[in-house]
Amino acid sequence: MEAFSDGVFAFAMTLLVLGLRDPTMGSTGSLLQGLFGEWPAFLAFGISFTTILVMWMNHHNLFTYIRRIDGPFMLLNGLLLLAATLIPFTTSLVADHITSADSGTAAEVYSGTFLFVALAWNLLWQYAIRHPGVLASSVSNAEINTTTRQFIFGPMLYAAAFVAAFFSGIASLAIILLVLAIYAFFAAITTIGGRSIESAQG
Amino acid sequence: MEAFSDGVFAFAMTLLVLGLRDPTMGSTGSLLQGLFGEWPAFLAFGISFTTILVMWMNHHNLFTYIRRIDGPFMLLNGLLLLAATLIPFTTSLVADHITSADSGTAAEVYSGTFLFVALAWNLLWQYAIRHPGVLASSVSNAEINTTTRQFIFGPMLYAAAFVAAFFSGIASLAIILLVLAIYAFFAAITTIGGRSIESAQG
Amino acid sequence: MEAFSDGVFAFAMTLLVLGLRDPTMGSTGSLLQGLFGEWPAFLAFGISFTTILVMWMNHHNLFTYIRRIDGPFMLLNGLLLLAATLIPFTTSLVADHITSADSGTAAEVYSGTFLFVALAWNLLWQYAIRHPGVLASSVSNAEINTTTRQFIFGPMLYAAAFVAAFFSGIASLAIILLVLAIYAFFAAITTIGGRSIESAQG
Amino acid sequence: MEAFSDGVFAFAMTLLVLGLRDPTMGSTGSLLQGLFGEWPAFLAFGISFTTILVMWMNHHNLFTYIRRIDGPFMLLNGLLLLAATLIPFTTSLVADHITSADSGTAAEVYSGTFLFVALAWNLLWQYAIRHPGVLASSVSNAEINTTTRQFIFGPMLYAAAFVAAFFSGIASLAIILLVLAIYAFFAAITTIGGRSIESAQG
Repeated sequence: MEAFSDGVFAFAMTLLVLGLRDPTMGSTGSLLQGLFGEWPAFLAFGISFTTILVMWMNHHNLFTYIRRIDGPFMLLNGLLLLAATLIPFTTSLVADHITSADSGTAAEVYSGTFLFVALAWNLLWQYAIRHPGVLASSVSNAEINTTTRQFIFGPMLYAAAFVAAFFSGIASLAIILLVLAIYAFFAAITTIGGRSIESAQG
Repeated sequence: MEAFSDGVFAFAMTLLVLGLRDPTMGSTGSLLQGLFGEWPAFLAFGISFTTILVMWMNHHNLFTYIRRIDGPFMLLNGLLLLAATLIPFTTSLVADHITSADSGTAAEVYSGTFLFVALAWNLLWQYAIRHPGVLASSVSNAEINTTTRQFIFGPMLYAAAFVAAFFSGIASLAIILLVLAIYAFFAAITTIGGRSIESAQG
Repeated sequence: MEAFSDGVFAFAMTLLVLGLRDPTMGSTGSLLQGLFGEWPAFLAFGISFTTILVMWMNHHNLFTYIRRIDGPFMLLNGLLLLAATLIPFTTSLVADHITSADSGTAAEVYSGTFLFVALAWNLLWQYAIRHPGVLASSVSNAEINTTTRQFIFGPMLYAAAFVAAFFSGIASLAIILLVLAIYAFFAAITTIGGRSIESAQG
Repeated sequence: MEAFSDGVFAFAMTLLVLGLRDPTMGSTGSLLQGLFGEWPAFLAFGISFTTILVMWMNHHNLFTYIRRIDGPFMLLNGLLLLAATLIPFTTSLVADHITSADSGTAAEVYSGTFLFVALAWNLLWQYAIRHPGVLASSVSNAEINTTTRQFIFGPMLYAAAFVAAFFSGIASLAIILLVLAIYAFFAAITTIGGRSIESAQG
């Protein structure tokens, strides 16, 4: 189950590279000018790649809390994977439109997908903590509360990015970058402070 | 063997995203209008993604019954994977043609692929229950009969969707959606009631 | 190492689906006519998918003989993976050209890739049997000789398909189909007769 | 964690095949002439495939030294994966431009990506050796020094290839090929001499 999810995350991250295209196709400029002009594609690639990476790190941490996987949990996890799989599509949309008149729409779709991801996270987590058989009994209430608090910020911040997109695509992207920085920080801290993942070869 | 199949299912699910395309390419409408006009692509993406997800859940459940994997079982499993790998292709066909004059043909190919998948499932299962060395001896006759009964509905329902496609592509899609809902329900129930999959980290 | 190779095989198999294209793009015929006209793409998809599947089954069987993996073995295994990764490309070439004037060239490239794969197999196997530390000591001389004999036919038969391609692309394809049938038969027999792969969940 | 990284490396390697294209699309020459004219694409495919393969071998060796994975280590490993994921893009750039006027720019981007990869390797390794909890205590100082020395050459050599690209794209490619040969040699030697990776099935 976790290996399957890892596969989808890893594959979605790698597929992002298909959003980077040769800028000289159908253009007369030099390759160098073209690559500089493609900055939104590189920025969107970096944001999406790192967001899926952090998502995978959180997924990994979440599964250390899980003892038993049942059908509804699998379906909710599938919802999360469905949302993650959409990211390469919305990333190329935002890359191609953020500097055009459709900038707002592209940012709405992009932030909307991340909002969807964040809501799927919370559904999965809420299901886990409401079904004692699913959560490992060794997980303390303090740990549950910390994780619940961390997850609750996601939908709120992505909803802010979604609303901002109606006014400015770039402002929406900036909020998404900020959320990413916060989550990367928490993912790093949680793994250090929480629980060491012993390597199988160590 | 199961990891290999998981990989193919995960890739096929993720590759579905390549069927979602920027609607403004070669068009003059706005991005928002274009995305709304692409609803068949999103619907087909959702149906195919969830069908492969449920297929993977069933595959996972099936393998808890299997004790020994032999050559013919591997080849029949390969037939199932071949059918699953076709889904991204038939999904993009149905997405691009369901609102056109070729709607019927697209729905025949789409439902035909799912019929192929369902027949491959039954072949794999019938092979397993007819070769005692393949099936784990701990599997009761009641469990065998339940699974046989669940699997037998697939080809019947997809055959109905296939026949319906000759009259209406949309009706065929509706039947496929119904089958998906039934199988998602059974996959959820089976995993809960049947056997708990203990997480390795728990 | 085996998981990594499995990933490449599974991914190469799934990428084959990108060689199947909507036949109505840039054409005026109906979808049904177009799909029938695409029969070489479906045939090539089937041949390549099944060949990589059998290749993976052989790889799996081979690794049950291996005790220790060293650097040169990894590089030779990498050569095998490189050859396997080329298959989606040569498959689409043969699909697009087998009915055109370039039929012979396409079949040369297609059979040439399989010849390359078969030679890489033999290199990997010859390296393993010449380095006792690599091969498990439990492997009998009879088992070594059986495998050596099975592997030696690959390059001979694919060389025949390569030579045949200079006269007829279709004849070359027919030989490749025959080789596939022989190897599928041996893969099924070997796994049954040789050694049972106990399922981890059984 | 290692399985996730393996997945990204395996996908990036396999995605390289999408950089190989049917040379007769939009051209009037024969398939054979077209394929010979595509030599830069095959060369770049071979270089990139083998570089990612060696990278994966080094990654595998590195992880035998690691005892505990923490958050910053995961983020630095993610940086390495991000760099690796860019390779299919820069490979197709160098394949399409190495014989054109933009040859230098393409080689700068290509060697620049490898420089980025090599710097990410060194960051990951330096983090590991400066945090005793991360590195396994069984790793001797001699082993640390050998690995540090091997990794330090990467950025230097790729920086040379990057600088060379300002004068000649082909010269830059030649340096990259040389670096690849050196690292393939070291990867082979290290695995043999250092530590045997026992196969799980042996």
